[in-house]
Amino acid sequence: MQWIDMRSDTVTQPTQAMRHAMAHAVVGDDVYGDDPTVVELEALAARLLGKEAALFVPTGNFGNQLAIFTHCQRGNEVILGDDCHIVWHETGGAAVIGGVQLRTIASDKGVMDPQEIEARIRVGQDVHWPKTGLICLENAHSNGRVIPLDIMQRTADIARRHGVPVHLDGARVFNAATYLGCDVQDITRHADTVMCCLSKGLAAPVGSILAGSADFIARARYNRKLLGGGWRQAGVLAAPGLLALTEMVPRLPEDHANARYLAEQLAGMPCIEVDIADVHINMVWFRLLADIDISELMAALSAAGIKANPPEGGRMRLVTHWQVSREAIDQGLEVFQRVLSD
Amino acid sequence: MQWIDMRSDTVTQPTQAMRHAMAHAVVGDDVYGDDPTVVELEALAARLLGKEAALFVPTGNFGNQLAIFTHCQRGNEVILGDDCHIVWHETGGAAVIGGVQLRTIASDKGVMDPQEIEARIRVGQDVHWPKTGLICLENAHSNGRVIPLDIMQRTADIARRHGVPVHLDGARVFNAATYLGCDVQDITRHADTVMCCLSKGLAAPVGSILAGSADFIARARYNRKLLGGGWRQAGVLAAPGLLALTEMVPRLPEDHANARYLAEQLAGMPCIEVDIADVHINMVWFRLLADIDISELMAALSAAGIKANPPEGGRMRLVTHWQVSREAIDQGLEVFQRVLSD
Amino acid sequence: MQWIDMRSDTVTQPTQAMRHAMAHAVVGDDVYGDDPTVVELEALAARLLGKEAALFVPTGNFGNQLAIFTHCQRGNEVILGDDCHIVWHETGGAAVIGGVQLRTIASDKGVMDPQEIEARIRVGQDVHWPKTGLICLENAHSNGRVIPLDIMQRTADIARRHGVPVHLDGARVFNAATYLGCDVQDITRHADTVMCCLSKGLAAPVGSILAGSADFIARARYNRKLLGGGWRQAGVLAAPGLLALTEMVPRLPEDHANARYLAEQLAGMPCIEVDIADVHINMVWFRLLADIDISELMAALSAAGIKANPPEGGRMRLVTHWQVSREAIDQGLEVFQRVLSD
Amino acid sequence: MQWIDMRSDTVTQPTQAMRHAMAHAVVGDDVYGDDPTVVELEALAARLLGKEAALFVPTGNFGNQLAIFTHCQRGNEVILGDDCHIVWHETGGAAVIGGVQLRTIASDKGVMDPQEIEARIRVGQDVHWPKTGLICLENAHSNGRVIPLDIMQRTADIARRHGVPVHLDGARVFNAATYLGCDVQDITRHADTVMCCLSKGLAAPVGSILAGSADFIARARYNRKLLGGGWRQAGVLAAPGLLALTEMVPRLPEDHANARYLAEQLAGMPCIEVDIADVHINMVWFRLLADIDISELMAALSAAGIKANPPEGGRMRLVTHWQVSREAIDQGLEVFQRVLSD
Repeated sequence: MQWIDMRSDTVTQPTQAMRHAMAHAVVGDDVYGDDPTVVELEALAARLLGKEAALFVPTGNFGNQLAIFTHCQRGNEVILGDDCHIVWHETGGAAVIGGVQLRTIASDKGVMDPQEIEARIRVGQDVHWPKTGLICLENAHSNGRVIPLDIMQRTADIARRHGVPVHLDGARVFNAATYLGCDVQDITRHADTVMCCLSKGLAAPVGSILAGSADFIARARYNRKLLGGGWRQAGVLAAPGLLALTEMVPRLPEDHANARYLAEQLAGMPCIEVDIADVHINMVWFRLLADIDISELMAALSAAGIKANPPEGGRMRLVTHWQVSREAIDQGLEVFQRVLSD
Repeated sequence: MQWIDMRSDTVTQPTQAMRHAMAHAVVGDDVYGDDPTVVELEALAARLLGKEAALFVPTGNFGNQLAIFTHCQRGNEVILGDDCHIVWHETGGAAVIGGVQLRTIASDKGVMDPQEIEARIRVGQDVHWPKTGLICLENAHSNGRVIPLDIMQRTADIARRHGVPVHLDGARVFNAATYLGCDVQDITRHADTVMCCLSKGLAAPVGSILAGSADFIARARYNRKLLGGGWRQAGVLAAPGLLALTEMVPRLPEDHANARYLAEQLAGMPCIEVDIADVHINMVWFRLLADIDISELMAALSAAGIKANPPEGGRMRLVTHWQVSREAIDQGLEVFQRVLSD
Repeated sequence: MQWIDMRSDTVTQPTQAMRHAMAHAVVGDDVYGDDPTVVELEALAARLLGKEAALFVPTGNFGNQLAIFTHCQRGNEVILGDDCHIVWHETGGAAVIGGVQLRTIASDKGVMDPQEIEARIRVGQDVHWPKTGLICLENAHSNGRVIPLDIMQRTADIARRHGVPVHLDGARVFNAATYLGCDVQDITRHADTVMCCLSKGLAAPVGSILAGSADFIARARYNRKLLGGGWRQAGVLAAPGLLALTEMVPRLPEDHANARYLAEQLAGMPCIEVDIADVHINMVWFRLLADIDISELMAALSAAGIKANPPEGGRMRLVTHWQVSREAIDQGLEVFQRVLSD
Repeated sequence: MQWIDMRSDTVTQPTQAMRHAMAHAVVGDDVYGDDPTVVELEALAARLLGKEAALFVPTGNFGNQLAIFTHCQRGNEVILGDDCHIVWHETGGAAVIGGVQLRTIASDKGVMDPQEIEARIRVGQDVHWPKTGLICLENAHSNGRVIPLDIMQRTADIARRHGVPVHLDGARVFNAATYLGCDVQDITRHADTVMCCLSKGLAAPVGSILAGSADFIARARYNRKLLGGGWRQAGVLAAPGLLALTEMVPRLPEDHANARYLAEQLAGMPCIEVDIADVHINMVWFRLLADIDISELMAALSAAGIKANPPEGGRMRLVTHWQVSREAIDQGLEVFQRVLSD
């Protein structure tokens, strides 16, 4: 059975074109700087993201941690949202790798108040104070929402005024640009460095990009080796990565439209509460009201060939991507309809 | 000139009795466990704080960091208030020494909502999650307020239910007990480990205590050496430390009464706004309304032999301790009266 | 032009069979444990290496550092050879990631005296002493030599007697087994954990294996995520990795024979000094006597389509692998013959 | 009973003058830079050691680790002797605090071959290489021997040529100068930073000095706070520290003469082998030949009021200091004479 996997967009499998590209990639030893496909990918990614240089890394998590490690001195403070991916889903790596002190602040569905950020910046010589080494933003946020451009700009202005760099966890930055209807650079210009994933909605099997100034990327390249990310014939992954940027980015509007369709249909059902206004990208969050039998629902979804994560605390998430067609969504909706009408 | 120093209680100088004790202390090599005065101090401190064992360390900061380092594995998460001393005034040490990820949460003048704490505890096996290694409380808080016992108890109950230890930054825990009118153990029982300072309001020149279970303290003793805190003839400091616990704790009510007197007198003056309800221990915070000439005020205080830190953001703090008598306070009040009536 | 690349075996490109395997790999999300090809690779690697479990990681460097991080507590001491890869070529990662203290000891061409190791083991409770957390061996050594089995066994015996684990950097452990004419498990049984590369002589484009007990690998899996190695559709790399183990291991004798042939031919030339006795695997080291024009030699090699690293301190290394045929070697020898006879 | 403690010079107790100085010290809050006695001590120490500035720290271990932390970036390599105090007796702190990779090299009784050091310096841009961040020397070595000045100079020359700083663990640097009959600056000029202890042979109860350039010490002061060494009324320790430098340094020749006398007398006894040539400072090492009953010897020493550490691996150490008079030594010798003649 071919599953319809709506657990996340991390589950996306490579397209046929990507598989073909892997099989025919021209490769070299990337530690020697010898892999032409990696070189091509890094150049394209830098150009698209509006940065001087880029580096190909194994995962988004690796890219974020590498950014923190390269931006900061040990003991620096990093200001970021309490609910962001780095805090929530990166296993405490910033403390081990970066040796930095996280200063988490409240976020309203992913959006931090720039004034709250500014209030925590510490740049003086006080012997009691760690120095603020970095501000991290996340756009699109892993909760599926997009941070407005003016919030990014105001944050960037504050950061520059205090001489603190900004890193953007842009795992889904192309989804954000798709939602905002802007060029991705209208987002990335508000950050000194940006990490974006080629996997997730862009479907490459493995790999992410860290982009920034030429000097920063040179130091990150050294640190990538230190952290064990100096892979060799990485061209076999860069080849599908190129397709992720050229062929998959343009089709993201389809995933977003599918998510919106899914949200609207679910919203019309009894016992389901969808926050339609929060469906910005390819994620639909909804609440199942109390009288639904969760295990029955999960079993019915599974029987219909649909993989989904069970609700946590009453909230459930479904994610669209290139392997979730409109028909697949209708199959899923039918299951909900049936279970809810029991 | 003999200054009246109201900047902080960290400025307290040893009493004559302490100076005498230093000069006559029986000492030995504490790394060998040979210093009888240190042994006596550690035993007394453990008994007073209601813990199995205690360790004498150079500073409160050292004691807090040693606690974090000894409780946690690298990459663990530590839940604590955004405005606590460890976050605010320990130079990012937790990231360097402990290698832990701070998870700061909002606090209402030092009081964290136990439910907010519980919502952040992470103890499962999820590969994305750091494990919560520690919860840190601070009582009295360095902002001068005391956390109510029921908040401590509810936090401790939550922590135990999830198997997470609690460390109490009790730099001024005897001030807290004095304010609450309880035995200090009524506070410390809600923490697995407690750090308390013998300097500050207790006037010992150098040194703090870390107390906890015998096993914990054995590991902390090893780690103290690792962190460079394995001092030698520390009995010369333990001797005044003993007096801090036996002779200075009983006189803390005087400092608190003086602080309250100072607060009430200031509150009666024009252009000063004192939050009387927040005067719990030996600290008085107040706002100077806009039309006061700060430099004139600071000069007048200095001319009267009074050291004070200038207001920050309109807020000013004065601190009482054994070297600030009621007469000294009246001297200070007179300056305020004079400057404000100009 | 198709280069003959004798700089290292890290430059090996995937075989046609590997490219085909990548294009047709069944994949899933490895962070969810969902990728069947990764699961198959880890099972096969564990079985071959004689360990309970195995984990697929991005690089050999990553695998070694992950092993150190997972075996040791911060501040532990790791005993290893002064010339080993972890010391020499891993960019200081052990200090950053593992937080361990390296205790380097002299090695005789890669072989450490077991008694020297034992003399440095520290397991007591002395407060001055770090505890020995790990002993690292490397076989085959990155200098091309193989450590005798009895040395490995004596080291393992000492380690077990003191309760210290042994990690084997087995980047080229299959080369070592090929040289020794033994099963690879005759080597790996003397280590608690082993890292082996699927790239290098085995030609997979990206990826290495860390193998050990089931408990160790479970902890390493968590730590792999922390270090940013939680990749997703890694099956596209596991597929060629499987071929590395099944199809490429059996052909290693050919690389060794070619290296030996190359060494013998070079040894017969004037002005070249080859230490034939050290040609254990696929590496040939030799000295060029002073009157050779190095730049002429390098230019001539390049003109003949041969990539080689220039000599360092008079010593030059050539490496054989599946893309270096006997004919290619003869081409290279012809260049040496020509330049040396000038 | 008044013990004669020959276990180490770390056991020295403060002199009467020191006790008097503690009792009458003018003190202030050293975190505010307000303690005049600390300021005086730091100025004197800087001047004596020939450096721009100095910092008062709780222990020698703290001073060494602070130096490593302040000199190095994480992941840097530190070259030092396999038998030095930092490696041997500082509990692995360099890995935890400094995050550096130790590169230990063989030393001949404390003396490292400058060429061996140079061979390990790594300063290039190679992505595989940690950068050498520091070279550590120890003089006098904790084994009791003094490194010749020309070795120090040659090492310093090499270090400067490669742009690598040198730190001197000079816990007993005044003993070294006493042995060499030179000014202490003739030693310290060969290091960028130097740590020296005021305890040990100089008898202050607690405290050491880290000296270096003004810029280095400013950064070390910040880092001292981070590491929990920001003590308050430290003048009570600085006061005896001043006497350590002014009154105790001049009497070190007496300790050395006593050690030499002890060595010569022991050398004349049967069953004892003293390496007279290695008695440079206040330590005497000797071998007890096999037929001596160690427990009888230790009991006899104890009965005579003499504390000594039992031999390890057949080697025994006795240490002289201001509380070990010539008469005390004779008492000890009598015990040896008696036990050995049994």
